[in-house]
Amino acid sequence: MPEYAIPTMQWAQVFEKNGGPIEYKQIPVPTPGPDEILINVKYTGVCHTDLHAWKGDWPLAMKLPLVGGHEGAGVVVAVGELVKDIKIGDHAGIKWLNSSCGQCDFCMASDEPICESAVLSGYTRDGTFQQYAVVNAGHAARIPKHLPLDAMAPILCGGITVYKALKESQAKAGNTVVITGAGGGLGTLALQYAKAMGFRTIAVDTGDEKAQICTQKLGAEVFVDFMKEDVIESVKKHTGGLGAHAVILLAVSEKPFQQATEYCRSRGTVVCVGLPAGAKITAGVFSTVVRMLTIRGSYVGNRLDTQEAIDFFARGLISAPYKVGKLSELPKVYELMEKGQIAGRYVLDTSVCAPLQGHERDRMLTMS
Amino acid sequence: MPEYAIPTMQWAQVFEKNGGPIEYKQIPVPTPGPDEILINVKYTGVCHTDLHAWKGDWPLAMKLPLVGGHEGAGVVVAVGELVKDIKIGDHAGIKWLNSSCGQCDFCMASDEPICESAVLSGYTRDGTFQQYAVVNAGHAARIPKHLPLDAMAPILCGGITVYKALKESQAKAGNTVVITGAGGGLGTLALQYAKAMGFRTIAVDTGDEKAQICTQKLGAEVFVDFMKEDVIESVKKHTGGLGAHAVILLAVSEKPFQQATEYCRSRGTVVCVGLPAGAKITAGVFSTVVRMLTIRGSYVGNRLDTQEAIDFFARGLISAPYKVGKLSELPKVYELMEKGQIAGRYVLDTSVCAPLQGHERDRMLTMS
Amino acid sequence: MPEYAIPTMQWAQVFEKNGGPIEYKQIPVPTPGPDEILINVKYTGVCHTDLHAWKGDWPLAMKLPLVGGHEGAGVVVAVGELVKDIKIGDHAGIKWLNSSCGQCDFCMASDEPICESAVLSGYTRDGTFQQYAVVNAGHAARIPKHLPLDAMAPILCGGITVYKALKESQAKAGNTVVITGAGGGLGTLALQYAKAMGFRTIAVDTGDEKAQICTQKLGAEVFVDFMKEDVIESVKKHTGGLGAHAVILLAVSEKPFQQATEYCRSRGTVVCVGLPAGAKITAGVFSTVVRMLTIRGSYVGNRLDTQEAIDFFARGLISAPYKVGKLSELPKVYELMEKGQIAGRYVLDTSVCAPLQGHERDRMLTMS
Amino acid sequence: MPEYAIPTMQWAQVFEKNGGPIEYKQIPVPTPGPDEILINVKYTGVCHTDLHAWKGDWPLAMKLPLVGGHEGAGVVVAVGELVKDIKIGDHAGIKWLNSSCGQCDFCMASDEPICESAVLSGYTRDGTFQQYAVVNAGHAARIPKHLPLDAMAPILCGGITVYKALKESQAKAGNTVVITGAGGGLGTLALQYAKAMGFRTIAVDTGDEKAQICTQKLGAEVFVDFMKEDVIESVKKHTGGLGAHAVILLAVSEKPFQQATEYCRSRGTVVCVGLPAGAKITAGVFSTVVRMLTIRGSYVGNRLDTQEAIDFFARGLISAPYKVGKLSELPKVYELMEKGQIAGRYVLDTSVCAPLQGHERDRMLTMS
Repeated sequence: MPEYAIPTMQWAQVFEKNGGPIEYKQIPVPTPGPDEILINVKYTGVCHTDLHAWKGDWPLAMKLPLVGGHEGAGVVVAVGELVKDIKIGDHAGIKWLNSSCGQCDFCMASDEPICESAVLSGYTRDGTFQQYAVVNAGHAARIPKHLPLDAMAPILCGGITVYKALKESQAKAGNTVVITGAGGGLGTLALQYAKAMGFRTIAVDTGDEKAQICTQKLGAEVFVDFMKEDVIESVKKHTGGLGAHAVILLAVSEKPFQQATEYCRSRGTVVCVGLPAGAKITAGVFSTVVRMLTIRGSYVGNRLDTQEAIDFFARGLISAPYKVGKLSELPKVYELMEKGQIAGRYVLDTSVCAPLQGHERDRMLTMS
Repeated sequence: MPEYAIPTMQWAQVFEKNGGPIEYKQIPVPTPGPDEILINVKYTGVCHTDLHAWKGDWPLAMKLPLVGGHEGAGVVVAVGELVKDIKIGDHAGIKWLNSSCGQCDFCMASDEPICESAVLSGYTRDGTFQQYAVVNAGHAARIPKHLPLDAMAPILCGGITVYKALKESQAKAGNTVVITGAGGGLGTLALQYAKAMGFRTIAVDTGDEKAQICTQKLGAEVFVDFMKEDVIESVKKHTGGLGAHAVILLAVSEKPFQQATEYCRSRGTVVCVGLPAGAKITAGVFSTVVRMLTIRGSYVGNRLDTQEAIDFFARGLISAPYKVGKLSELPKVYELMEKGQIAGRYVLDTSVCAPLQGHERDRMLTMS
Repeated sequence: MPEYAIPTMQWAQVFEKNGGPIEYKQIPVPTPGPDEILINVKYTGVCHTDLHAWKGDWPLAMKLPLVGGHEGAGVVVAVGELVKDIKIGDHAGIKWLNSSCGQCDFCMASDEPICESAVLSGYTRDGTFQQYAVVNAGHAARIPKHLPLDAMAPILCGGITVYKALKESQAKAGNTVVITGAGGGLGTLALQYAKAMGFRTIAVDTGDEKAQICTQKLGAEVFVDFMKEDVIESVKKHTGGLGAHAVILLAVSEKPFQQATEYCRSRGTVVCVGLPAGAKITAGVFSTVVRMLTIRGSYVGNRLDTQEAIDFFARGLISAPYKVGKLSELPKVYELMEKGQIAGRYVLDTSVCAPLQGHERDRMLTMS
Repeated sequence: MPEYAIPTMQWAQVFEKNGGPIEYKQIPVPTPGPDEILINVKYTGVCHTDLHAWKGDWPLAMKLPLVGGHEGAGVVVAVGELVKDIKIGDHAGIKWLNSSCGQCDFCMASDEPICESAVLSGYTRDGTFQQYAVVNAGHAARIPKHLPLDAMAPILCGGITVYKALKESQAKAGNTVVITGAGGGLGTLALQYAKAMGFRTIAVDTGDEKAQICTQKLGAEVFVDFMKEDVIESVKKHTGGLGAHAVILLAVSEKPFQQATEYCRSRGTVVCVGLPAGAKITAGVFSTVVRMLTIRGSYVGNRLDTQEAIDFFARGLISAPYKVGKLSELPKVYELMEKGQIAGRYVLDTSVCAPLQGHERDRMLTMS
C-alpha cells in the first residue's frame, strides 16, 4: 500500500458570508473520522449549485465560513479505522452527498439523497475547492484507476444528476425524451446518457452552434430552437402528434416548467431538475387528470446511481465538454458563469497552488 | 336464454343545450351494433360530472342534444352478433368509458381511458338517464347477479375512480394516505377502498358528523377538520413528522391542490382526481426537486380496474351511502347537488316512468 | 382507396395430419368477418414453431387440416365492416396471436398472449403459408409502408419474442445480459434488440463463425463458446465475479436451463423462451432462495410489444440475416431446419405460385 | 440516559461442532465496536434455521464454536462511539442479518440480505442464545418501547421473512395468495400479514385443528387439506379455474415445490422460502413459457422490511402463537422441533440463568 505525506496546511477557496469575498488562502488539512476517508482532490468541477451556495439563493441552511465545491476527483491518502473496502492510493470522488444518517426510512430504501440528516459537500460541510477534503467512506464514489480525473469530475454531479433524472422519467428504451436546456452543462450530459439508455431525444435550446453539437455530436434526433419555433407544436410534430414520453427540465428559467405538460404525451412524465430561484411548477388540473400526467422532482442520484453513471462514462459512452483552469481562478469562473459565457463545464486543477500566469489547458468537445 | 320484450320508445332525461331545460320525455330505444349490447338500465347514479356536463363546464366537446348519466346498472336485453361473452339476461354496467378505439398505443397498453377516440357515456354518447342504453360490449362492466343493482351504480364511476387513484398513488400496504374531501361521495368510497387495500388513512374534511362517519364507520385512523386545524401541521403530527406517503385530492376547491405537497412525505405522491373548474396545480420547484415529490393526475380506471373495484364491493368491503330517487327527479337532484346538500350519492330508479307522488326509498349509511 | 381483385382460389401449403405429407395446392380464399381483415401475404417467415406444429410436438390441441405459418407480411385487401383504423392498401402483418377474447382478466391487462381463448395463426387457425390469410383487425401488426416486407417477416415472430423476453428480464440499461443460442435465428435478433435497449451482452453459442458474427456484427461484448469453455466460469469472469443481471434462454437443448441460475447474478432473472420438447427447468431451492433468483417464462409479445419491436426495426437498428425462398419450397426448408443447416431465417415469397426452377434471391447478413 | 451495569460473564448455549453437545455455560460478555451496539437479550425465538445450523445442514460455512439464535429482543446497554441514533435504554432486536458491507452493489440497492460479506447472527457470528449479544447498529431492529419483547421475538425472523416473501410475490390487494405450510410457525404469520396487506388467502396444510385456526383466527378464506384433497384441483376450484395469483412455499418438504406452478395462475408468481435439505425446484419449460410463470426465491427482508414488519405487529395486526421457555431448555426445544411437536414458536427467556423447576408461562394463540 502506498503512503502519502499529508501536509498540515493546504490551499483553499473560502468565503465567510453569502455573496462576500472568496479568499484563496491556506487552511488546515482536515482529519477523517473512523468511517471517513481523506481525499487529495486533484480536480474539482464548478457547478451552478456552487454559485447558488455562495450567493445564498436557497431556503436551506449552510455552514459558514465555507469551502464550496462538490465535484471532486482525487486520490485517497488516509482512511478511518472502520473503512474496509477503500485503500490508500485508490481513486475516489466527492459528490454533493457527503454522508447520510444510514438509518432513516429513506436511507434504508436507498433514497439517501432525501435523508433529512444528509451532509452536503460544499454546503453543510467543506467541499472540494481545497486540496484535501473529507468524505464518509460509504459515500465516496469509487473511480477505476484508468479514468482521467479531470474528465471524471463533472460526472460526479452533473452526470449523476441527469442519469438519475432519466431513470426517474420512467421512459423505456425506444421512447422519446425531450431535454430542455440541451446545450448546457447538464444538457450535453443528458443527451449522451439518454442515447446510451436507448432513448430517442429531442433537444430544446437555442442557437445554431448548439443545434449542431446536439444533433451531430450528442445524439439528439431533433433540435428545437425555442427562439425560432413554437416548442409545443414542434415536439408534437416530431412525435406523431402525441407528445414525448418524458421531458427533462434542466432549464434555469421558469417558462419551460409551464409548457412541458403541453408537449408531454398522455401518461408521460415531466421531470424537474433545474432550480430557477423561486420558480413554481404550474399545470392545469383538468388536463393533468384526464391525460394522467406525472410531474416529478428528481434531485441527485444515490450511491448505486453514482457507480452506474461512472460505469457509462468508463465505457466511453459519455464525453462532457470541459475546460481546465486553476483552483485560484474560481472567482473568474463564477463571473463567466453569471454572464452565461461558459459552454460545457469548468474543471479546476488544485495542484497549482500559487497564482500562475497564462497557460491553460483547454479541451474541446470530443466524442467517442 | 331469457328473452326480453324491448319497447320502441322509452323515458329519458334530455337537454338540448348546456344549462338549458332538462326534459323528461319519451325517446326511441337505441339499437346495439354488432359489437355492442343494449342494457335495460335499472338504476343510475348521479355524479358531479353529470352536472358539469349539463352546464358545459369543461373544455371538451360533447354531443347535443344529450341524455346524461354514466353510472348505470341493469340487465342485458340484446347483444350484437359479435358479442360472445355476454348473454341476454346477464347483469351489466355502463360507466364513463363507453368504448375506445382498441388499437392506439394507449388502448394496447390497457390505458384506454386516455384513448383519444374514447366515447364517453352521458357526454359524447347518450348515457344512463334513460331506460335503455347502449354500450360497447368490451366496455360493459360485468356484474355478478347476486349484487343489488342500486348499491352497485355508484361503484361504476365513483368506486372505480377512487380505486384507480389509490393504485396510482404508489402507496403500499401499511402506508398512510390522506384523503381530502373524505366525507363526500368519492371520499367515503376512497376511505373504504384504502382500508381494503391495507392502507392507513387520514381523512380531511369538515364537521363533526363527517368526522364521526369517517373514523367510526369508514376506517379512517384520524380526521383532520380543515376549518379547525392547520392541515399541514396536523398531517405531519400524525405521520411522525414526515408527512403522508400519498395524498388523494378529491376536493372540488383549489386550495388543497396547493397545500398537498407540503404534507406529503418526501418521495410521496399527490394524486389529483377532483376537477374544480379552471383550477391549477402549483408547487415550488425547489421543494419538489429536493424532496423528489410526484404529482400525478388520475382519471378513471380501465376495464380491469373496473372488475377489481366491483370485486371489492362484491366481497362486502365497500358500502357507499346513497339515497334512491326516481329518474324523473333528476333536476331536483342537480339542485341539491349545487347547494352541496347531498351526503353520499343519489341513485335513480328508471323503472318508475310516470311522475309519482311521495314514496321514496331511502337507504342510510350501512357498513359491514 | 385502392381496390384489389381478390381471387376465389389461391395456393397454399396444407397438411392433414401431424407429420403427414404437406401438400402445395389450391384452396379457397377465406372471407374476413366484421372485425377481421384479409391480407394478401407477400412474404412469410418459417419458424421452428411451424416445424413443431407440423410434427405435433406440443401438448396443445390444433386445427387439422392446417395451413401453417405465423410470420406473414403483406397488403390489406379487404376489411370487415367494423374495422376503422386499417384501410385497404395498408401494409399489415400476421403473427402467432391471431385473435384473443378481449375480455378476460389477461386481455384486459394487455396480457392477451396468455388469453385462454387465444386463436393462434398456423396452429388453431390457418396461417401464412397461403397467399391470402385472415386475422382479427386488432391483432394485425401495423407495418409502415416504406419497410421491406421480406425483411419484416421474421420480426413478426422472432423479433417480437426476443424483444418481449428482454423486457421481461427486468434488466436495465447498462446491465449485462447473457444470450444462449446467440448465433441462431432468435439469438441474432436478441443481440441486436439488447444493444438497442442499452444492455451489454454476452453471447453463448459455439463455432468461430458465430463468434465473429456475434461480436463483430451484432454487438456482443463477449462470445463464450460452450464447446471450448466452462460457461459458468466464463460468464462470471466477464461480470466481475457476480454473474449476469439476466439470462435469455433461447437454446433448444435442456442443459442451459440447468446451468443458467449458476451464472446469473443474485437478484437476477433467468428468462425461458426456447421450448425443447419435454424439457424441465431445475434449480436448487437453497441457492434460489438465498440468492433471491427469479426464473420466468416469456412467451410472445402483446400488441404494443409488436409495434415497439417493429419500431426498432423501422429505425434501422435490427437486421436479421435471412434467405428468400418460394412458398412451394416449404418442405425443403423443414428438411434443412431439422438438419440444423439454416443460418438465420428462411422467408418465403408467396407470389410465385407455380413451382419455378433455379433463381433464388439470397440476402446475406447486413448490419447498419 | 439510563446506565446499565454490564457483567463480564454471562450464560449462553454453545456448541463446538455440528451435531455435537450444546452446552449451557458461562462465557464472556462481548464488547461492541465503534459502529455496533450491545444488547441485553431478554427473549430469543427458536427457529428451524437454528436447528439446521447446529446440524450443519447447509452448504454455507459457519463460525465454530457457536452461540446460535437470531431472533433476539432486548435492551440496548452499550453503544459504540459512532452510533448516533440508538441510545442506551432503547429497545432493539437482533435478526439473521447482523451486518453487511454497506458498499457492494447489493447493499447500495437495499438488497443487503444478498451481500456476499453479510455477517449472520447465530451462524457466522455469535447469536441470541446468550444474555448479551452484539449487532451492527445499522442492522439492529428498532423496537418501540410499548411492545412486549417476548411476542416481538418471532417477528424478527419469521415475521420479516414472510412479509418479504409476500412483497416479492407481486400480488396486489384483492389478489389470492396460496400459503403452503399455513399452519406452521411461518404460515400462521404469513396468513396474518397477507390479510393486513389486503390479500385473500388459501391455506394449505393438514388436520382439522389447523383448518380451524387458519380460517377462524388467521383470516384464511379457504383451507385445503393436502391429505384429503387434490391441492391442484381445490385451489383452481376456489379461484374460478384460473389458479392463485401467487404461491408462498413455506413447506419443508419437496413435493409442494413441484406442484405449485400447476395451481398458480398464468403470469403469477411462485415464491420459494422454505429450505428442505437438498430440495430442487422443477417445472416444465413449455408450461412455464406459455403461461409466463415466475418462480422466485425470497430470503429475508432488508432493514426497511424489518421496520415495516414490526409496524404491522405494533398496530396489533399480527399475533403469532408462541410459548415461553427458558434459555437453559434449548436442547429440549430442538428435540420437540425435530419431532414436529411444536405448534407456533418457542421463545426463550434469557433472564432465568440457573436451571429452574416447573413453572413455565404459556401463551396460547390470541388474535386481535
